Amino acid sequence: MEEGAFCINGLSRLLYFCSRMSNKPTLFTSLSPALLHLYDLSNSIVVIIDVFRATSTIASALHNGARCVIPVDSVPKAIEISKNIGGIAAGERDGMIAEGLQHGNSPLEYTRDFIENKTLVLTTTNGTRLLQMALDRNADTIISGSFPNLSAVCDFILSEKKNVVLGCAGWKDRFNLEDTLFAGAVIHRVAKHFTVHCDSSLMAETMYAKNKNKLVEFAPKLTHYHRLVERFGLIEDIKFCLTPDLANVLPLYNDGKLVAQ
Amino acid sequence: MEEGAFCINGLSRLLYFCSRMSNKPTLFTSLSPALLHLYDLSNSIVVIIDVFRATSTIASALHNGARCVIPVDSVPKAIEISKNIGGIAAGERDGMIAEGLQHGNSPLEYTRDFIENKTLVLTTTNGTRLLQMALDRNADTIISGSFPNLSAVCDFILSEKKNVVLGCAGWKDRFNLEDTLFAGAVIHRVAKHFTVHCDSSLMAETMYAKNKNKLVEFAPKLTHYHRLVERFGLIEDIKFCLTPDLANVLPLYNDGKLVAQ
Repeated sequence: MEEGAFCINGLSRLLYFCSRMSNKPTLFTSLSPALLHLYDLSNSIVVIIDVFRATSTIASALHNGARCVIPVDSVPKAIEISKNIGGIAAGERDGMIAEGLQHGNSPLEYTRDFIENKTLVLTTTNGTRLLQMALDRNADTIISGSFPNLSAVCDFILSEKKNVVLGCAGWKDRFNLEDTLFAGAVIHRVAKHFTVHCDSSLMAETMYAKNKNKLVEFAPKLTHYHRLVERFGLIEDIKFCLTPDLANVLPLYNDGKLVAQ
Repeated sequence: MEEGAFCINGLSRLLYFCSRMSNKPTLFTSLSPALLHLYDLSNSIVVIIDVFRATSTIASALHNGARCVIPVDSVPKAIEISKNIGGIAAGERDGMIAEGLQHGNSPLEYTRDFIENKTLVLTTTNGTRLLQMALDRNADTIISGSFPNLSAVCDFILSEKKNVVLGCAGWKDRFNLEDTLFAGAVIHRVAKHFTVHCDSSLMAETMYAKNKNKLVEFAPKLTHYHRLVERFGLIEDIKFCLTPDLANVLPLYNDGKLVAQ
């Protein structure tokens, strides 16, 4: 028993120092906007993750030909900007289309017929707020990710070879599992190219690996599922948001806009 | 597929509304002190969890006959109070015995020979700070828990029939897995007596259930393990902190002191 413990200990020490000695970039997972201040964003790519539904909707709109998505933090701002530029004002508050707007935060609303060559001005409860926080904290690069654009996110962070912070938007600062599962999916694919020394990332990858073949079946256990499905019947939204690569674009933030790369 | 989804959806809806209709108390898990403000503590038992090592040390000292443990937030305060009452000043900063103190935060230091009938005045990096936050937010009842007193914690919260917030101390506001695993162990035992509608709790219970028979073997994956074992060689501390019921007392906070019930 003592000898076994010593072996584990020795191996772990070796791995730990090897990773410390390596020149791999780091990868951290921030489980809530209220924890984002713990991470140095100034030399990192920050992945904004709001699976239900902002970052799924952003991927959907851009994949279907939207010129860009302008994330804003209030309904009046969404209305004003969309008027000025002839865009589509859209957004939700507490899961519903926000008062004063005609379009909400469902990825299925933004078909090619509707959104191609238009600009979407989007305000949401959690995702747009987290993006603003990353901006305020001088993130080096900001992209957005969800299952529908999982491969595009992984390809980008692998090609850039920079530090990464996976930023979960959560729900009003509370931890949620759908964002964590997406962080886990990214880590599952890219971990060997990064130094990942962070319990949040270990947990996220473990939760994803355990559920990766049954994400839609797992969804009814999630708090947010009840908000969206029990109250608003949005099961098709849930399926879209949890399915990899249905809208495989890379939304990159630059000068106030998310544009497909 | 659609039919299956409908069945899951229908069952989930039923379970959800049943739990909402029940009179069971609620149970939430706060994954970091930086998230504690999201929970209403004023009508809840708050379980302070700092597995490596404050709440393991508290259980150890009280189990071995300490009169009480006085948690304080600074080294000078620990020295002053212990002088006034003839107690033992102890504590750590960043995993080491704090400067100016003779005793640290190892549960193995507090044998019966040493601590019986004495008062321990303890200051630690994370645990004592979280306890102060719970006090400031008017927690109804404060207890402390770790694996060495798992059963005592579960028995108490089952007998009280009040709402519960499991408060993970983390590491300088970062999420850590050892505290989450203990929260999961509590949930694993008591869940059916509570309304648990919280992704943090679902995740904690899942992580615990997956690792419950190999906690010590899992430990080398934890960030904090490296801090304690690689730097300070504290493998025996780790084993103690992760073993259920080695010091099965219930530390209840009252009037500045944690006393065994």
